[in-house]
Amino acid sequence: MSFMQALRQRWQQAGTLVCVGLDPEPAKFPARFAGDADAVFAFNRDIIDATAEYACAFKPQIAHFAALGAEDALARLVAYAHANHPGIPVILDSKRGDIGSTAQHYVTEAFDRYGADAVTANPYLGRDSVQPFLDRADRGVVVLCRTSNPGAGDLQDLDVAGRPLYQHVAEKVAREWNGHGNCALVVGATWPSQLREVRAIVGDVPFLVPGVGAQGGDVEAVVSNAKTADGTGLMVSSSRAILYASSGDDYAAASAAAAKSLRDQINRYR
Amino acid sequence: MSFMQALRQRWQQAGTLVCVGLDPEPAKFPARFAGDADAVFAFNRDIIDATAEYACAFKPQIAHFAALGAEDALARLVAYAHANHPGIPVILDSKRGDIGSTAQHYVTEAFDRYGADAVTANPYLGRDSVQPFLDRADRGVVVLCRTSNPGAGDLQDLDVAGRPLYQHVAEKVAREWNGHGNCALVVGATWPSQLREVRAIVGDVPFLVPGVGAQGGDVEAVVSNAKTADGTGLMVSSSRAILYASSGDDYAAASAAAAKSLRDQINRYR
Repeated sequence: MSFMQALRQRWQQAGTLVCVGLDPEPAKFPARFAGDADAVFAFNRDIIDATAEYACAFKPQIAHFAALGAEDALARLVAYAHANHPGIPVILDSKRGDIGSTAQHYVTEAFDRYGADAVTANPYLGRDSVQPFLDRADRGVVVLCRTSNPGAGDLQDLDVAGRPLYQHVAEKVAREWNGHGNCALVVGATWPSQLREVRAIVGDVPFLVPGVGAQGGDVEAVVSNAKTADGTGLMVSSSRAILYASSGDDYAAASAAAAKSLRDQINRYR
Repeated sequence: MSFMQALRQRWQQAGTLVCVGLDPEPAKFPARFAGDADAVFAFNRDIIDATAEYACAFKPQIAHFAALGAEDALARLVAYAHANHPGIPVILDSKRGDIGSTAQHYVTEAFDRYGADAVTANPYLGRDSVQPFLDRADRGVVVLCRTSNPGAGDLQDLDVAGRPLYQHVAEKVAREWNGHGNCALVVGATWPSQLREVRAIVGDVPFLVPGVGAQGGDVEAVVSNAKTADGTGLMVSSSRAILYASSGDDYAAASAAAAKSLRDQINRYR
């Protein structure tokens, strides 16, 4: 089953648009993980088990693992999710981008070494930098379009022929790069009007939407502006608000409750 | 000594503008490394030793290591270069870019885990995504401006207020992001007129120039269009043409000869 098939099946059968972000920061782990040499794996494993029911996808953010030298834990977590929660795709959030011959090595990193079902990619180097990812038709390629951070507009909002750059990226991805139907776009929750504009350009191309919760995005505005006609089309990503919902021994139950609450909020507006 | 001080000192005292790229591909290694479990380290170590005399910087490309699970070899190579060839800075070519809170983890990866003196960074997410790198004033931040790959123009050449996007990136970096004087730019060798235009915008900001050699860029055109008034300002990057100059037992001597030849070619036009 391809990434896109798994994602659509998950939206429909599990009835959730929540993407659970895995951003491990040991300083925020519950006290019980202190001194656990395998804490990065063990904490994320518990979060995966607790939130799987409410997740349309898991999204480990690779910088958090790389800063800790925890590549092995990352590989084991992807395998664990696949083995224990089949049908929930794993998106490696690495925002890679390099010239074609090097991009091939990032493809190997994401899809072969870590076994991810999809990857995030940066479009600044152009199509041939993304092509090796696109060529893996069974995997997903989630291209940065309009991000949720304060400086996003520095480049993404620059006016190109009467429209902001990010809309040109959306159009290129939907019309030129999506030949295998395996593309999605990162569009942040911060400005709902941008979600609406990109949705009008790209049809049913899925959005990965960061910025809800800790970054202040409004769930109703996101869903009503960005959903597709069938009430899906979104992976609403939440990381810290789910992962660190409690630092006590109830951390797993608290993260499950946070994921369930976000699922229910989203579903109210689908 | 900061990255910029080391680089300038290297240009002046060693008289070379050659940046030796370390892109390990075991299938291309000389036959003597077959069966060597530590071949990635051993081969690159030999290249470092053979080419140090001709190098203003070393540039390991991280995807090549990540695809092999060779993070440990990468860390040991940076330490080896620092210990055995002090004064030659190491640029981690990782082209990272993410929102501020995540960018901090990429800073930890590049500067603390691997001990790199500089890092390449992607500007698409805007200033706050690069700021955590910029804040490390003793390290260098080499921002992608105009790359050397065939699809580079897909975004980078789009017209923004009468000028291509990459020139806006050059201007932002030189005028706004370079407060600590630790910025450089990636400008490919493919179109010398672009090098000249960017040089006119950014003054003495150093360029990392890929695309000479295997990608077809012309050395004379690069140097004459991109050098600064004192005949420096460039890190002319070559990877495959140096690394894989010979697959025989003379690989180290052949890589040294290739690096020397590029140095001499460059110096003819400084």
